[in-house]
Amino acid sequence: MRFLITFSYDGTNYKGYQKQPNERTVQSEIESKLTKLNSGKKVILNASGRTDAHVHALGQTAHFDLEKNMDPKKLKHSLNKLLPNDIYIISIKEVSSEFHARFCVKAKEYIYKINMGEYNPFERNYIYQYNAPLDVCEMERALQYLEGTHNFKSFTKVDEEKETYERTIIKASINTDSKNLNQLTLSFLGTGFLRYMVRNMVGTLIEIGEGKYKAEDIISILESMDRTKAGKTAPPEGLYLKNVFYE
Amino acid sequence: MRFLITFSYDGTNYKGYQKQPNERTVQSEIESKLTKLNSGKKVILNASGRTDAHVHALGQTAHFDLEKNMDPKKLKHSLNKLLPNDIYIISIKEVSSEFHARFCVKAKEYIYKINMGEYNPFERNYIYQYNAPLDVCEMERALQYLEGTHNFKSFTKVDEEKETYERTIIKASINTDSKNLNQLTLSFLGTGFLRYMVRNMVGTLIEIGEGKYKAEDIISILESMDRTKAGKTAPPEGLYLKNVFYE
Repeated sequence: MRFLITFSYDGTNYKGYQKQPNERTVQSEIESKLTKLNSGKKVILNASGRTDAHVHALGQTAHFDLEKNMDPKKLKHSLNKLLPNDIYIISIKEVSSEFHARFCVKAKEYIYKINMGEYNPFERNYIYQYNAPLDVCEMERALQYLEGTHNFKSFTKVDEEKETYERTIIKASINTDSKNLNQLTLSFLGTGFLRYMVRNMVGTLIEIGEGKYKAEDIISILESMDRTKAGKTAPPEGLYLKNVFYE
Repeated sequence: MRFLITFSYDGTNYKGYQKQPNERTVQSEIESKLTKLNSGKKVILNASGRTDAHVHALGQTAHFDLEKNMDPKKLKHSLNKLLPNDIYIISIKEVSSEFHARFCVKAKEYIYKINMGEYNPFERNYIYQYNAPLDVCEMERALQYLEGTHNFKSFTKVDEEKETYERTIIKASINTDSKNLNQLTLSFLGTGFLRYMVRNMVGTLIEIGEGKYKAEDIISILESMDRTKAGKTAPPEGLYLKNVFYE
């Protein structure tokens, strides 16, 4: 029996999604509780992908297999009771044995939140406290150059070895909160993302908002395939994996 | 020189506002940093009142005295640099030596946030996760019986000894968030509040929302002057001291 699990987590107190020895990770928390509910027989989570330390998820997905049949609703309830209060299981449903939470991904959506207004202690782990104005118009204008299929080597981790750095951004947008004009939300819908890619795009967009680059500079940054040409890596606390889309 | 300081804090990691031996408190954090900026000469904070463990503040106020003159803007900046990131100084201004942050209070506003929808891990320290529907109409109807001048002994801490339990609630209201109908904000504007008074009123309002009491039962609960007649104490994480009003 294969199950698809959708869950949210506050990444503040985690060293990221992926299991690592002697570190608190989201994967190890959920796997250990699932294993407990599976009478001690080890359960492995296969996620849509990892998220880095302190990055959040509103709708991360993973699949896992159980030998015996279990009611998904009861399993969700039992799992939420065992899990720490910074992880929440949104849903569990049975899927076919061919489904794979990573290989079957059609698109993913990430959002990144920035506070251009005064420092807010309640947001410190959830919204990047930039605390200064940005040229949002110019940032918005830059998004069109990120959309589409490009080689994103300039926007990934320096030593990241990949077969291909080509990815497609289906839609990139920027919005201000209706109640708080100083709060920006950048949104990226894409077929896939390289390591640090969203945070490096956001860091570059912030430098465009500061006037260090022009919107059109995105073209030459992409063409350079050189990480040093793009902006800084934006901090993790503003980043959320919002949705993972399947067929 | 007397100064009025307005500040916000995320109460999650504090044992409350008021100084206590060997405990992390908001008062001791700010006093120690102010003392440092005052060349080591002890500075005492006199707040508008205390807040309990894990309760938040959006606009707490206090006054303090310095022998030498200091620029309030520079002092704000230096203090924010030294303070931990869960406390933020909003403003500092010079006031007359007759001003007193507690005795001169004209009114205070508290808000209390409740999530009636599904559990949200990002809200766990900031909004009470009630996670079930409530009869908001009946709760709203109950507010009219809390408004006005009453003896609030039924709504304070059992062993609280006070000269008078009479307090005036100028306005009590309930609102749902425009983006999230499951998120309630209860608001209480009053001339003063007894210990646990807001959390005990909210706990009682929740039991009214559950149908355990009727709105009119507030009248007899107030008249009884008996804490056991009111509802449970609502948890601290939903409570915010929003504003302190002076002349």
